[in-house]
Amino acid sequence: MPDALYERLAIIGAGLIGSSVARAAGKAGVAGHIVLADADASILADAERLGLADSYHSDPAAAADKADLVILAVPVGAMASVAGDIAGALKPGVTVSDVGSVKESVLDSLTQTLPPHVHILPGHPVAGTEQSGPAAGFASLFEDRWCILTPPPQSDTQALDRLTRFWRALGSRVEIMDARHHDLVLAITSHVPHLIAYNIVGTASDLEAVTRSEVIKYSAGGFRDFTRIAASDPTMWRDVFLNNRDAVLEMLGRFSEDLTALQRAIRWGDGDALFTLFNRTRDIRRGIVDAGQDAAVADFGRPHKD
Amino acid sequence: MPDALYERLAIIGAGLIGSSVARAAGKAGVAGHIVLADADASILADAERLGLADSYHSDPAAAADKADLVILAVPVGAMASVAGDIAGALKPGVTVSDVGSVKESVLDSLTQTLPPHVHILPGHPVAGTEQSGPAAGFASLFEDRWCILTPPPQSDTQALDRLTRFWRALGSRVEIMDARHHDLVLAITSHVPHLIAYNIVGTASDLEAVTRSEVIKYSAGGFRDFTRIAASDPTMWRDVFLNNRDAVLEMLGRFSEDLTALQRAIRWGDGDALFTLFNRTRDIRRGIVDAGQDAAVADFGRPHKD
Ligand SMILES: NC(=O)c1ccc[n+]([C@@H]2O[C@H](COP(=O)([O-])OP(=O)(O)OC[C@H]3O[C@@H](n4cnc5c(N)ncnc54)[C@H](OP(=O)(O)O)[C@@H]3O)[C@@H](O)[C@H]2O)c1
Ligand SMILES: NC(=O)c1ccc[n+]([C@@H]2O[C@H](COP(=O)([O-])OP(=O)(O)OC[C@H]3O[C@@H](n4cnc5c(N)ncnc54)[C@H](OP(=O)(O)O)[C@@H]3O)[C@@H](O)[C@H]2O)c1
Repeated sequence: MPDALYERLAIIGAGLIGSSVARAAGKAGVAGHIVLADADASILADAERLGLADSYHSDPAAAADKADLVILAVPVGAMASVAGDIAGALKPGVTVSDVGSVKESVLDSLTQTLPPHVHILPGHPVAGTEQSGPAAGFASLFEDRWCILTPPPQSDTQALDRLTRFWRALGSRVEIMDARHHDLVLAITSHVPHLIAYNIVGTASDLEAVTRSEVIKYSAGGFRDFTRIAASDPTMWRDVFLNNRDAVLEMLGRFSEDLTALQRAIRWGDGDALFTLFNRTRDIRRGIVDAGQDAAVADFGRPHKD
Repeated sequence: MPDALYERLAIIGAGLIGSSVARAAGKAGVAGHIVLADADASILADAERLGLADSYHSDPAAAADKADLVILAVPVGAMASVAGDIAGALKPGVTVSDVGSVKESVLDSLTQTLPPHVHILPGHPVAGTEQSGPAAGFASLFEDRWCILTPPPQSDTQALDRLTRFWRALGSRVEIMDARHHDLVLAITSHVPHLIAYNIVGTASDLEAVTRSEVIKYSAGGFRDFTRIAASDPTMWRDVFLNNRDAVLEMLGRFSEDLTALQRAIRWGDGDALFTLFNRTRDIRRGIVDAGQDAAVADFGRPHKD
């Protein structure tokens, strides 16, 4: 394969993201041989049935053996243990990266666990859906989405350059960022949005005066949008909040402060304050659509009959 | 027209909802003649260019004259003034309804303003998009969505029955509900979701440590979902919060209480509490998809290349 950036690519975790990386890398021809590993035998069997890789392993060390690039695609809380599993099998000069939604804690545990002859280059493709598992993945998931790489200081520039070209070949735009700053940015663009979505769905489920059936029937008023996010994988999201505590609490503090001000405006009938905020927030939507980060069509392009 | 339920239908307000009612009623053939009115001459001209009705009026009284059904499709805060405009022109036995997102305050102001020979039957189709104006409407908007009617006690059953058949002909399922209960249910399924969406977009715009450009670039992590709702019409939403204050404040109180508990779980690293909530909220999503109130496909069916 002439364009192969890595002779041997090992992906540990064959879920939504891992399987999408396998598909996209296969399609782009950027790896000579793709190995998929998963701790769960039935998930691995699904991946094999789907023909996502060239070989399959239940043992992550066997998968990482002789690999030129290893990508960890397991929940953030499992990264340290998988790193421990593969540490002894890694060949000198290999790049170990990941796709975890939190970066500082992952960088720390990889640095503590992996041998010095390994290039540790953590990453996070900002792309996904609310679904899980190998069947939910698809090759175009990363197209036109940003992949953030958070290399530690003094990283090998050649290794970083190669990983950058890898993600570009998968369709991503690549940004280099400090791990701590990544965690702050994603706290507001991803983690807190998920938390408040989970929270409002929980609140709605627990009301006495409004039934569950009413919540479901009238969800098209806006609530249903939040339920999509709140259907995301519980393990993945538990790990995100446990591993990005400080940034999430800081952003949550801001959110609550602003919400209290809005609550006050409603209590006192301050229509101007409400109008001013509601008018200001349209700009950001326009920016997102203009930047190609969401569909321009109404209602996300939800299916309609005309 | 054999199926016409109303000889003459007047719709006051030619925006997203008013224009969609005109389109759907025209398509279903449930009105002998459709009149559209709007205070804004350029909007009325747009509606006429789109051919949405049989006749067009800038004066709501002229539009309501001789009508058998009048539907007010203006922001909730404008309902009282439009009712005042048309009161003198209404013929005995006419049904006056509306599509406002709040019901108790609208019922009160229609009851105070309109003459006793009018059937006042407020309504709310729980369907919409984030867009406004006549060009944004479409005939299938109400299909498989619920339309809630909130007739006052001792309403005329024949008039109510006819209005129910009207909405069913437009594709809606119809539910009869007390106006106050409507406002409580919609506070949690629509109003508070919009408020927290507006709020988080505001919070994200005001951060010093994270730039606007970063918020836009990494919005695919979840944030972009909220920006759709937060791009909704500011006037409409200001009026909703000013007119459903008590129910919104009550639901907001619950939401904040629950969010504080989540915040505490994050601070103390209580992964089990997080996992339990995140696991519980998936059910409601499943209920909504099973009830046909959202698309079953991942990511709302957002366009992807494969
Ligand atoms: N979903 C998104 O939208 C998204 C977006 C960007 C980044 N991410 C990140 O991507 C990573 C994977 O998420 P995902 O959505 O792909 O999750 P997923 O579909 O649940 O896949 C994760 C896979 O990893 C397996 N796994 C768990 N622990 C393991 C271990 N110790 N050794 C080997 N395999 C193990 C899981 O098996 P079991 O199910 O049997 O545990 C599962 O098959 C997470 O770090 C997440 O933060 C997710
Ligand atoms: N959007 C939704 O998703 C949705 C869903 C269900 C129910 N509703 C309800 O439907 C109603 C209309 O909302 P919409 O989304 O259709 O809004 P819209 O697209 O902004 O349309 C409202 C129209 O009413 C006109 N108008 C305002 N005041 C008027 C007056 N005094 N006399 C005559 N026309 C007047 C407006 O003109 P100007 O723009 O010049 O003021 C505008 O053309 C609201 O009560 C809303 O609560 C909306």
